[in-house]
Amino acid sequence: MASTDIATRELKNPIDLAEYLFRRLHEVGIRAVHGVPGDYNLVALDYLPKCDLTWVGNCNELNAGYAADAYARVKGISALITTFGVGELSALNAIAGAYSEFVPIVHIVGQPTTKSQKDGMLLHHTLGNGDFNVFTKMSEGISCAVAHLNSPHDAATLVDNAIRECWIRSRPVYVTLPTDMIHAKVDGDRLKTPIDLTLPKNDPEKEDYVVDVVLKYLHAAKNPIILVDACAIRHRALEEVRELVEKTGLPTFVTPMGKGAVNESHKNFGGVYAGTGSNPGVSEAVEASDLILSIGAIKSDFNTAGFTYRIGQLNTIDFHSTYVRVRYSEYPDINMKGVLKKVVQQMKALSPAPVPPINNHLPEEEQASTDQTITHKWLWPIVGQWLKEKDIVLTETGTANFGIWDTRFPANVTAISQVLWGSIGYSMGACQGAALAAKEQNDRRTILFIGDGSIQLTVQELSTILKNKLNPIVFVICNEGYTIERYIHGWDAGYNDIQPWDFANIPKVFGAKDNYEGYRIKTRDELNKLFADESFNVSDKLRLVELYMPRDDAPAGLKLTAEAAAKRNE
Amino acid sequence: MASTDIATRELKNPIDLAEYLFRRLHEVGIRAVHGVPGDYNLVALDYLPKCDLTWVGNCNELNAGYAADAYARVKGISALITTFGVGELSALNAIAGAYSEFVPIVHIVGQPTTKSQKDGMLLHHTLGNGDFNVFTKMSEGISCAVAHLNSPHDAATLVDNAIRECWIRSRPVYVTLPTDMIHAKVDGDRLKTPIDLTLPKNDPEKEDYVVDVVLKYLHAAKNPIILVDACAIRHRALEEVRELVEKTGLPTFVTPMGKGAVNESHKNFGGVYAGTGSNPGVSEAVEASDLILSIGAIKSDFNTAGFTYRIGQLNTIDFHSTYVRVRYSEYPDINMKGVLKKVVQQMKALSPAPVPPINNHLPEEEQASTDQTITHKWLWPIVGQWLKEKDIVLTETGTANFGIWDTRFPANVTAISQVLWGSIGYSMGACQGAALAAKEQNDRRTILFIGDGSIQLTVQELSTILKNKLNPIVFVICNEGYTIERYIHGWDAGYNDIQPWDFANIPKVFGAKDNYEGYRIKTRDELNKLFADESFNVSDKLRLVELYMPRDDAPAGLKLTAEAAAKRNE
Repeated sequence: MASTDIATRELKNPIDLAEYLFRRLHEVGIRAVHGVPGDYNLVALDYLPKCDLTWVGNCNELNAGYAADAYARVKGISALITTFGVGELSALNAIAGAYSEFVPIVHIVGQPTTKSQKDGMLLHHTLGNGDFNVFTKMSEGISCAVAHLNSPHDAATLVDNAIRECWIRSRPVYVTLPTDMIHAKVDGDRLKTPIDLTLPKNDPEKEDYVVDVVLKYLHAAKNPIILVDACAIRHRALEEVRELVEKTGLPTFVTPMGKGAVNESHKNFGGVYAGTGSNPGVSEAVEASDLILSIGAIKSDFNTAGFTYRIGQLNTIDFHSTYVRVRYSEYPDINMKGVLKKVVQQMKALSPAPVPPINNHLPEEEQASTDQTITHKWLWPIVGQWLKEKDIVLTETGTANFGIWDTRFPANVTAISQVLWGSIGYSMGACQGAALAAKEQNDRRTILFIGDGSIQLTVQELSTILKNKLNPIVFVICNEGYTIERYIHGWDAGYNDIQPWDFANIPKVFGAKDNYEGYRIKTRDELNKLFADESFNVSDKLRLVELYMPRDDAPAGLKLTAEAAAKRNE
Repeated sequence: MASTDIATRELKNPIDLAEYLFRRLHEVGIRAVHGVPGDYNLVALDYLPKCDLTWVGNCNELNAGYAADAYARVKGISALITTFGVGELSALNAIAGAYSEFVPIVHIVGQPTTKSQKDGMLLHHTLGNGDFNVFTKMSEGISCAVAHLNSPHDAATLVDNAIRECWIRSRPVYVTLPTDMIHAKVDGDRLKTPIDLTLPKNDPEKEDYVVDVVLKYLHAAKNPIILVDACAIRHRALEEVRELVEKTGLPTFVTPMGKGAVNESHKNFGGVYAGTGSNPGVSEAVEASDLILSIGAIKSDFNTAGFTYRIGQLNTIDFHSTYVRVRYSEYPDINMKGVLKKVVQQMKALSPAPVPPINNHLPEEEQASTDQTITHKWLWPIVGQWLKEKDIVLTETGTANFGIWDTRFPANVTAISQVLWGSIGYSMGACQGAALAAKEQNDRRTILFIGDGSIQLTVQELSTILKNKLNPIVFVICNEGYTIERYIHGWDAGYNDIQPWDFANIPKVFGAKDNYEGYRIKTRDELNKLFADESFNVSDKLRLVELYMPRDDAPAGLKLTAEAAAKRNE
């Protein structure tokens, strides 16, 4: 204590560590903090209002983690507060998902006092063995940095470094805040200098070298194309991609995880490439290209319809956040952003191939059909016709995540899903975080498509949505269970069945009043009518739509991917 | 593959590994397996029915873990099946709780094939970095053994060892089952020999030595007492404790975590000892004793009303599963069971002190009161009057966990709570597991007391209860938020408030029909009437009772403990 007091006296503008931490969160754009209160974080929560941060107060920590993930995907970064042991461990699946999919979350864990930890006290929320480090170790493998705020001397520096790492590497960081450190005094004058969030510059000579190589191949190619994937979004290269698309005029495609990365109403846009699960005509165009500018690729099974890419590395230039690869030549320690910028500046005019047309028209057989059944083939183009610019669209791991491949977005739509990590239930929690971020961004619409099986994992976040007065539109696809799993294994197995719920009435038991409206939609006409109804399209309350679809129907992309997964499991 | 085929040909009675594993689970008493289906465990689930195991099918993995925990507390051991990454991580908080509180759960994780893992494939449910071991590492610190079933040659041995470790050490084990190993052939003849679950015998010379020391102090003591705690239950020493209580005739007390360990209607039973939070008269009796036979103690903050024990080590003999300590002399590597048995056999007759009377009578001021408000002071003795022999009583971390100190149980009541780990929401999941175990044990009643804040974390397990046709009685204490946290910090803070729910109607939206009845109880008369109503006491459906209590009321034990926690957090 004595040394702390001396340090405090030396500070010109001492402020409490919790305030310092929260002001830094505000500085990087965070306006709301997700989490669940617990006795080791309560005192810290008192500091939120004075730092202009709203407390969300989720129903549980996993859901809070999912929500923080989506909030970060919309706002750029987010924060999550949990309590020691019980709280933080419940959030690990969400944090691992954020690590896997490059989402920056500052995870702050309220801990017992530094003294209790040193003494190895037999406290609640411990394993009873005096080991206070075991939970940190569990988070280490899914965090890009760890900061233990155990001393006032380095706490402010650790906070700044953690937030910087979180932003730059676009992955979760783990920050511990023992209760006795909440009031510890740190140098408030540091706040006058914002945290430096700029990327380390590429070595100019190396960057020029890579740009030359890229240009050489680009200018020599006969029918180059652009293929945009998840890391272009997650590593904030969308402006560079936009300029590349404009300047080159090349046919541009996205992967499933790249949905939302480019303007899908742009004349260059050619559709979703996912190997054999691609939009019609797309695999032919992509696989015939002699040069694919592949930006931020994550070639996972669910992103490639079960590894059905047919692209040769000899025809590929891979742009990544930490390296560029031209055919088989790797250029490590270089960020794609600088390279792409210079490529755009220095390239000569190209003669791009024509782009195959893509739109939200229904397939001919669906246009001709008089069937009123809502099928995936019919649904997803119709959703595309209904969406508006700037909408945020969440899709759950399951039929929705594959169906959305057939939806062409208007401009500036943000797509949120977990194609790589694929934790079911994610999108219900994520919907809350996205809806909150949407509210902060002039009331963009937030739209969720989730299945009747997946929503059961995280349903209580409908309550958090009501509590925080958020206004998403939630479509619950009612098709009697875990359809994606049926396609992998156990078509009629009881373990893929679920308890039937009365979804449209759930918000009512969670306390909804006139801030909620529920719908039951069983035919195509009913859905068309709903989409055309102006009052339905006003974001002034939570809306939940039960959308009845056949038990055995699934998007083509899901069928292909599930078949490949089942085969690989043998 | 070639070596596997050769090995198969050599087996006289080859059976599939999944069947072997599940038959071993059945052998140790498991009849139902908790978990959530996922694509890496689906094929394994097909084997459950032929091994006479029921699949529960929980709404999410954390809840499944909590349920498995309670099922194990009633049945002796349990099993949980999750899927790689996303599934297993969601369950970690429950597994850590089981590790902390000595509950044996066999956690089986369905994994990608051994080949996919070796090749480091970029699969869904991975971190995208080819590392398939990171999740195992996260489980290692909260498992007493890890078994990777990667080869048919040692898989059966690993299964047997894991189940044995789980049982003997009474803690979770982590078992991985890659999808290609499900069908791997192992030696079915091994099943003819049951797994040896007997404890390693104590060294007889050492055991005799310790028994002599214990007897010396016991015979010399003037007013010895017995104090029974959690590990007597968890390490299966209850029969030895029962004999000790009978033979010695000594006044016997339990700690909060020891509730249910001894027959509380026995003449020797003196009540709950928790330092300053003890039942009336108990701390005086315990602290005046010159020899405390302390059996299975876990002296954590919440088990001792904030470390307010006033017992000297010079007056204590500690009996544990791995050591005995007499005053300051430690005897490691010795199990209390053998020692207690011999102490009972060899002891001389004692002249025990009289036991302070304890019952479920209301305190005098409550008897005289005409107030209809349901307060904690009134509620918990009344609950004790209502409970029946063999009931299973679950209490949530919060007011219920402290209130139950004032309830004297009938004989053979099982008490389930998480006093050390203290994860809120635990008891709702646990209620499902306990109710299922109760059904297997001739329809014992399962009764849960949970708060309106805690139930929000895990509410969907009411659906699993309905789906599995279980019949617990759930009391939701409606007191407007996280009361235990208000007592620690933030009396009027918004973060301790919750969204108001319509609890009694929740089972209805989760698909309840005539297998459910809901109640709203606001006065003492109403509750007395309900308890007296015979139809309410029949275990033939789920019953949920909204129990309205004042926002600012709490049991005395909670107030003391919260005050100590708040002070320690400074």
